[in-house]
Order: sequence, then structure tokens, then C-alpha cells
Amino acid sequence: MLEPIRHILQRQRVVLASASERRQRLLSSIGVEFESISSNFLENLPKESFSHPIEYVKENAKQKAIDVWRQLAGNGGHRPDLIIGCDTVVTLDDDIYEKPKDTEDAIRILSRLSAHKHVVYTGVALVTHGTNQSSSSSVADTVCASASSHASSGDSDDGPEDYVVTTFHEGTDVYMTELSDQMIKSYVSTGEPMDKAGAYGIQGIGATLVESIRGDYFNVVGLPLHRLSKELYHMYVE
Amino acid sequence: MLEPIRHILQRQRVVLASASERRQRLLSSIGVEFESISSNFLENLPKESFSHPIEYVKENAKQKAIDVWRQLAGNGGHRPDLIIGCDTVVTLDDDIYEKPKDTEDAIRILSRLSAHKHVVYTGVALVTHGTNQSSSSSVADTVCASASSHASSGDSDDGPEDYVVTTFHEGTDVYMTELSDQMIKSYVSTGEPMDKAGAYGIQGIGATLVESIRGDYFNVVGLPLHRLSKELYHMYVE
Repeated sequence: MLEPIRHILQRQRVVLASASERRQRLLSSIGVEFESISSNFLENLPKESFSHPIEYVKENAKQKAIDVWRQLAGNGGHRPDLIIGCDTVVTLDDDIYEKPKDTEDAIRILSRLSAHKHVVYTGVALVTHGTNQSSSSSVADTVCASASSHASSGDSDDGPEDYVVTTFHEGTDVYMTELSDQMIKSYVSTGEPMDKAGAYGIQGIGATLVESIRGDYFNVVGLPLHRLSKELYHMYVE
Repeated sequence: MLEPIRHILQRQRVVLASASERRQRLLSSIGVEFESISSNFLENLPKESFSHPIEYVKENAKQKAIDVWRQLAGNGGHRPDLIIGCDTVVTLDDDIYEKPKDTEDAIRILSRLSAHKHVVYTGVALVTHGTNQSSSSSVADTVCASASSHASSGDSDDGPEDYVVTTFHEGTDVYMTELSDQMIKSYVSTGEPMDKAGAYGIQGIGATLVESIRGDYFNVVGLPLHRLSKELYHMYVE
């Protein structure tokens, strides 16, 4: 659904605030041209201070995107037009699972997910110039920042803090099959779980462990492609 | 879930009866080593003679796999141990959608799918030697063929017709977003719909058109990876 706005997107400097190859592949797969810049945000927010994992992933996504905005907007170079930040977690009951600490942790997480439904949440933050406004047809949250303590860069009308942040999230239910101890240990021994939230990669060998999902598949991989496209469409459609 | 039987699979000659790069990528993604051989089966079965699309895709999958079995089993070479055949269709109400005939047909199909739920069915057939038996814990259909009108090949104990066919299917619900005429035409102009059942590719730009799914995502791409792994696990587990 991006084709009607692709000519606009092609004139924009789009930055993915992520070093994740999986997210880069996803964004490329829908034909968006972008560059990737890693955020320096430490991702150490206290999970327990958020009322719901949704708030946690949206805040992480926002902080990552704002960090990259500040890296780029303040140095007088070619200003970005759009920064996309994202964060993904796996949740079961009240627990949030991110990347496993070690193989023991991966075995513990997978034993917990076995034969259960869990929910994968991805929060997304879109940072644009303060003069852009999200369409009223969007149901995303929009926050403006215009009171700046930073100096404006020489070639821009607005300073590093003159931005708008639009955040949204998607949740996808994932039904994992019943895993024997042998299956879990042999899957962990492949190494695949170690850099993945929830200790499995649905786009790899982990595909064999998932009976079904309910929601956006790409949200489980790390970027909800339909919802992202819908938000961009409403943001840029003429 | 294939890790516990991977040492067995690695000793087998596995053949994917398909020239589809998408299916080849899917089977590779779960670590199965195989070769691809195209079936010569014409795929012209009369849809109306089947009581349900499930029967149609299973029969197509079976005919493709048997055709490749016969290509390989009769020529005295290295016999295959497992042939995997598959067929995928998109269905809405009583209609079956395969690849569009031309761009007009693609526009017609996408207009029909817009803002509706449709179901994607993939039928899979596994052809093995007549001496193999599927585990009783499988709920797939198994058919044996042992009365052969073909001569046995020189180096095999069983002839080209001495095989067992196990078939199964998966269905995945797909909820497509509401598409404007402009979105449909511009998507069709990318060329992506032309070689895809239902005129969209969920693993490409078409990802942006799909709000959510219910079932196995990989079944929509063309091969139900969880169910296939489960069937192979029960077939080979020691």
C-alpha cells in the first residue's frame, strides 16, 4: 500500500534506528530505501515501572529513534526526514522475555513457551520534523517537542528538539508446539535462539516450533509491515 | 523440531518436487538439505470435480511428487528416499484463485480479496519407499502403491510404483486490508502479483496489504513448515 506515496518517500531521507539485519531486510522487502544507524540508547528502562509491555516497547522505540534524530539533526549535515525506531518483546502472563542471557536462560524461556500461547509486541516510533503532522485518521499517539535546549543547526529551520514523535504498537499471538527437552536442547545448540527475543527465530529453524500465529507475522520478526505502511500512508498521502 | 532426526535426514536423498524459489528458500531455512526437480505434471485437474479445495491441492501435490518419483526411480540411478510435493491455492467462498492470467485478472482477484478474509490452502505429499511406514501418531492420509506395471530398476528392491504417499494440508486465514483502486493498480504495476496464487506475495511488497493472519505464515508462502516438520519427525524418529 506504499505505492501511491512511493514518489514522496523516495525524496525523503529515511533512517532505520536499528542495526538489526532482520529489520533491515523487512524494510527493504517492502521497497523502502533507507539507511541504518544504530542508536546509543542503553535500553535499560526498568520494566516494572511500565503498566504494560506495550508502554515499555513504545518507550524503547521512541528513545532509540530520538537518540538517532539527535545524532543527525545536531551536526549541520543533511537532515533526516523520517526516523523509524522499534523494539520487540515476547510476553507470557506478566513476564517479558528479551534476548536470553546464556544457553541456560534460552532453555528456561523455551520450556516456558512450550505448548503455550504467548504474545509478541513490537513498538514503533516515527520521528519527523516539527512541521509535519500525522493525519487525523491515524490512531497512533503523537507527541510534539519544540522547546529546545539545543542550538539549531545552521541549515535547518528547526532545531534538534523540534520534532514530532508518533508511536504505535502491534501485538501478535504465537502458539508454540509442545517441545520435548531433547527438542529444546538441540534447538538451543544450533545457536539460533541467542540473539532473539523469546529465544526463538520464527524466520529460521524456529519456524518449525510454531503451530500458528494470530496477527501480523512480520511483527514477530521485528517490524509490523502493514501497520507501518498504513501510518506512513496517512502521514504522506496527498 | 527436526534437530533430533537431522542425522537421519542428512543420510537421505531428499527431493523437492518444485522449481519454486520461494519453496526452496523455505525448506533451506529450516536446515533441510535437498535437491529440486521440477515435476512434469500438467496441473490441469478439473477443480469442479473436487468436493473441496483441500482435496484439489492434495491431489496436485501427490501427482507432482509421484511424477518426480517416477522420473528418478525408474532410471537405475541413486534412488530418492523422500520426495516432497506441494500445491497452494487461495480460496474465497467457493472460488479458487491460482496465479493470475494477466494484469486484468490480477486486478480482479485483488479487488475481490480487498477487505475480506480468504483462506490459503497448501497440500503436501510425501513419497517414500514402499517399505517405509508413517507413524500411527500422524493424522495424515497414507496410500500405498505396490502392484506395479513398471519394471523394477536394476539396483533397487522395489520398483518405480512401490511407494507410499502421505498427504496432508494446512489452511491459513488471511485478512486483507481495504485496498483502493489506486493501491491495487499500483501494486499490480510492480509485477509482483503475476506469479503468485491469489495475485499477492505476502513475503514481498504484498506484506503491506495483509492486516493479519491466523494459522501458519509459511503455509501462505507455499510450504507449512511446522506441519511438514511434525510429519517428518513422526516418520523418522527412532
